[in-house]
Amino acid sequence: MFKKVCIIGCGLIGSSIARAIKKNNLAKKIVSSNRSEATNKKVIKLKIVDEASSDTSKVVRESDLIIIATPLSSYKGVLLKIKKSIKNGAILTDVGSVKKKAISTIEKNIPKNISWISSHPISGTEESGPEAGFSELFKNRWCILTPSKQVKSKDIKLLESFWKKIGSKVDIMNASQHDYVLSITSHLPHLIAYNLVNTTLKMKKKKDRDIVKFSAGGLRDFTRVAASNPIMWRDIFIENKENTSKMIDKFIHNLKYLKRAIRKNEQKKLEIIFTKTKKIRKEIIKAGQDIGKPNFGRK
Amino acid sequence: MFKKVCIIGCGLIGSSIARAIKKNNLAKKIVSSNRSEATNKKVIKLKIVDEASSDTSKVVRESDLIIIATPLSSYKGVLLKIKKSIKNGAILTDVGSVKKKAISTIEKNIPKNISWISSHPISGTEESGPEAGFSELFKNRWCILTPSKQVKSKDIKLLESFWKKIGSKVDIMNASQHDYVLSITSHLPHLIAYNLVNTTLKMKKKKDRDIVKFSAGGLRDFTRVAASNPIMWRDIFIENKENTSKMIDKFIHNLKYLKRAIRKNEQKKLEIIFTKTKKIRKEIIKAGQDIGKPNFGRK
Repeated sequence: MFKKVCIIGCGLIGSSIARAIKKNNLAKKIVSSNRSEATNKKVIKLKIVDEASSDTSKVVRESDLIIIATPLSSYKGVLLKIKKSIKNGAILTDVGSVKKKAISTIEKNIPKNISWISSHPISGTEESGPEAGFSELFKNRWCILTPSKQVKSKDIKLLESFWKKIGSKVDIMNASQHDYVLSITSHLPHLIAYNLVNTTLKMKKKKDRDIVKFSAGGLRDFTRVAASNPIMWRDIFIENKENTSKMIDKFIHNLKYLKRAIRKNEQKKLEIIFTKTKKIRKEIIKAGQDIGKPNFGRK
Repeated sequence: MFKKVCIIGCGLIGSSIARAIKKNNLAKKIVSSNRSEATNKKVIKLKIVDEASSDTSKVVRESDLIIIATPLSSYKGVLLKIKKSIKNGAILTDVGSVKKKAISTIEKNIPKNISWISSHPISGTEESGPEAGFSELFKNRWCILTPSKQVKSKDIKLLESFWKKIGSKVDIMNASQHDYVLSITSHLPHLIAYNLVNTTLKMKKKKDRDIVKFSAGGLRDFTRVAASNPIMWRDIFIENKENTSKMIDKFIHNLKYLKRAIRKNEQKKLEIIFTKTKKIRKEIIKAGQDIGKPNFGRK
C-alpha cells in the first residue's frame, strides 16, 4: 500500500499502528522518530519498526505516509523539523484528539503538494508507551478524518482505505464538529474521571487504606480512565478549552440540580434521571462500542 | 451453619446470597419474600430458594438468619411486617449501602433478643433482578459489618464467618465511618457517572447518533455505572445526603480549579494532578480490587 511509512512518536497509538501495518503487510518499510534515544532503541529491539532515530528530518525522507503521533503541544516543533524533507505528494496525518487548533498550526507551516488529512482513531487504553501497543487496537473502533480543503480525493480515499485495513470504521467530519462531539464523548468524561480521583486523593490523606480497599464500590472504574497519559490529556483539554469549559459548566449546572433534588428528598426526579441514563448503555452495546457482560466481564 | 435463612428482596444481591448459600451448603432451608408474585414464582422456578411468598411475616418465621436486601426506603415497612414473627435469638442483617439512618430506623422498631448486625457487601454489577445474581459475586470483595451495641459477640462472629464462607473479606466499622468512606469510594462515583451520562443525554437530542458511536472515547465506562439500579441509588443518595452533599461541593470546587488551569494554559498544574491520579490505580490492582488488564480486558 505504501513504500515507506514514518511514525513520529511511537507510543501506545504510534506503536499500535506500526504493529498493524506489519501484521497486514501495508508498507515495505516502517520508520519512526522519537525524541528519546531509549525509545528509538526499544522500538528497533521490539521489531516494531525497521529504523528509528531522533533525527526526524532525516528519517522522514522518502516517506509516502507520515503519521504524527506525539502529544498535541509538539506538533509545531515536529512540523518545523520535517517541513524541508517531506516528499512531494506525500500524505501527512496525525492521530490527535483535538482538530481545530492542530489543523490550523499545520496548515500555516506545511509546504505545498503535501496532502494533510487529519485523523483521529477513537481508541486507546489507559497504558502508555511502545510496549503497551498492539495491532488489534483499532478493530471495530471509529476513526474520524478531517481533510484539508485542497486535498485530492484520491488521497482521502487512500488514507480511508488504510484505516479500514487496520480494522477501523471511517467517518469524515469538519474540525468544529469533531471537537464538539469529542468534548462530549471523550474529553469531559476524562476530565471528570481525573477530577473524581483527584478529589478522592485529597480525602485519601486521612483515609488512605480505606479508599483503595473499598474502591470496588464504583471508584475503581474511574481510576482506569484517570490513569491515561497525563501529557496527552493536558494538551487535549487546553487545545479544546472552549468546548471543554462549556461542558464543565453544563456538568456543574446538572450536578447542582441533582444535589438540590437529593437534599429535598425528591425521589421521583432522581428516579426519572437514573432510569434515562440506564437506557443509553444498551444502545452503546448494540452499536458494538462496548461489551455487554456485567462489570465489563471482570472477575 | 443455619437451619433456615430468609432473604427479603431477591434481587441481584439477595439472589446472589441465596445462590452462594446453596453452593456452599450453609443452610438447610432458604426462603424469600418479595412484594411481586412474579418474582416469588421466578425464584422458585430458578431454584434460587426453596420457598417464596409475598406474606413476609409468615415466611420469616423460624429463620435463624434474616437478610433484608430491599432498597433502603423499604426498611421500615419490612420491619413492621416481620417484627412480630422474628424468632427469638435470630440474627437480622441487611445489605444496604448507607448505615446511619437505616440502623436507627431498625433499632427503633426491633424487638428485644434479636441480634441486629448491619452488613454491607461492597459488590454488585450494573444489572438488577434475580436472574442477574451469581454465587461468586462476593468473592474477594469486602463486606463491612456494623453491629448494634447490645449484640452478642458470638453472633457477630457467626455472621462474619458466614460472609467469609461465601467469599468475602470482613471489616468492622461504625455507621458514621462507613457512610463517610463509602460516600467517597462509591456514592460520589455513582452520582458523578449518573450526572455525566445525564449531561450527555441532554446533548444527545442534537447529536443522537454520534454520542453512541464515539462513546469508546471514554463515555462508555461511565454508562456502565450509570446503568445501576435507579431505585436503589435514589435511596442511597437521599439516606446519605449530608456526606453526599459535602462530597459534591468538594468535587465542584476541584473541577473549577481544573477549569481555571485549562483556561490559563497552566500545563504544569494539570500535569501534576493527572500524574497523581495515575498512581492510585496501581494500588487498587495490587490490593486485588480490580484487574490489571488494559481496558478491563475488554475486546
